[in-house]
Amino acid sequence: MLDRLALNNRSYRRFFEEEPVDLATLRELVALARLAASARNLQPLRYILCTDRHTNAAIFATLAWAGYLKEWPGPAEGERPAAYIVVLSDTAGAVPTYVGIDQGLAMQNILLGAVERGLGGCILGSIQRGRLREVLAIEDRYEILAVLALGRPRETVVVDPVGPDGDIKYWRDADRVHHVPKRSLDELIVAEV
Amino acid sequence: MLDRLALNNRSYRRFFEEEPVDLATLRELVALARLAASARNLQPLRYILCTDRHTNAAIFATLAWAGYLKEWPGPAEGERPAAYIVVLSDTAGAVPTYVGIDQGLAMQNILLGAVERGLGGCILGSIQRGRLREVLAIEDRYEILAVLALGRPRETVVVDPVGPDGDIKYWRDADRVHHVPKRSLDELIVAEV
Repeated sequence: MLDRLALNNRSYRRFFEEEPVDLATLRELVALARLAASARNLQPLRYILCTDRHTNAAIFATLAWAGYLKEWPGPAEGERPAAYIVVLSDTAGAVPTYVGIDQGLAMQNILLGAVERGLGGCILGSIQRGRLREVLAIEDRYEILAVLALGRPRETVVVDPVGPDGDIKYWRDADRVHHVPKRSLDELIVAEV
Repeated sequence: MLDRLALNNRSYRRFFEEEPVDLATLRELVALARLAASARNLQPLRYILCTDRHTNAAIFATLAWAGYLKEWPGPAEGERPAAYIVVLSDTAGAVPTYVGIDQGLAMQNILLGAVERGLGGCILGSIQRGRLREVLAIEDRYEILAVLALGRPRETVVVDPVGPDGDIKYWRDADRVHHVPKRSLDELIVAEV
């Protein structure tokens, strides 16, 4: 079961924008994030949920998409995310060393939960943070860690083996299928004892 | 389905040590980790798998357990992990800013996969890294990020609400049930738009 979810949990960057995702669904996803492990159980992560069209557009304007696709400015109108979860850290209670790990653990629960619901997402780290802080009136105590773009995926993403040249850059073919070269299991496993 | 996995994916620190976990199972778990997103798709994470009793004992000797349980030195003989996955970063291809996030995303797949198989795990970050490097002959190019302890859980772990005093320290009751106070969903969600 999980292997199917993990396989279908790709980074989707084009969505059926007109299909709404409701706040109740986003709350379910954060409920999954809540259950993830947290270093020293400090639980510094916080979330802003957005499904509002106008605010979605303002969030979208702060994001940069798909660094390797130089020709592509990001999803066009009609294929933009239907919802966002902005992931924050409450700096009052966070140990910087561990925030990234907490963030990964929690976001994976969110993304797998999205896939289970027929949705998909993309983690965006290239954000105009000052501008996003204004858009959402985010207080200074919160650090902006990432934006999760969510919606029903409007693209096919396939996992390929890394080729002999070792290039790991993702790319898009003539049919707009998105290809992600992944290292082999044997490359990842350094030793077995 | 995932909500049950996420709920049962607690940090387990006592195991049925005599019940072996085989290398094939650990490989399946790394296959799940392989499918997790990676910043810029760099995929810097590497893994060492261990199911060997003697090496398990040597790994165990490098670990510190459960910082909040001051009276407890860690699992006794017979309740120690049956297997380990050591999570490394290949520093040649890693962007330090994003390694923690990659690590969290991948480890969550591993841990959820373990739970699906009737196993459970614990992420350990307090490691005598120099000593572990010697035990497993880990080359300098790899940074030791974490150790995942794995086995069939021999303890009950429950999620409680954080009490009015705001204390998030986990604790163990007289029946050795492990309690983890988790912040409420409303505390985690800063705003909904």
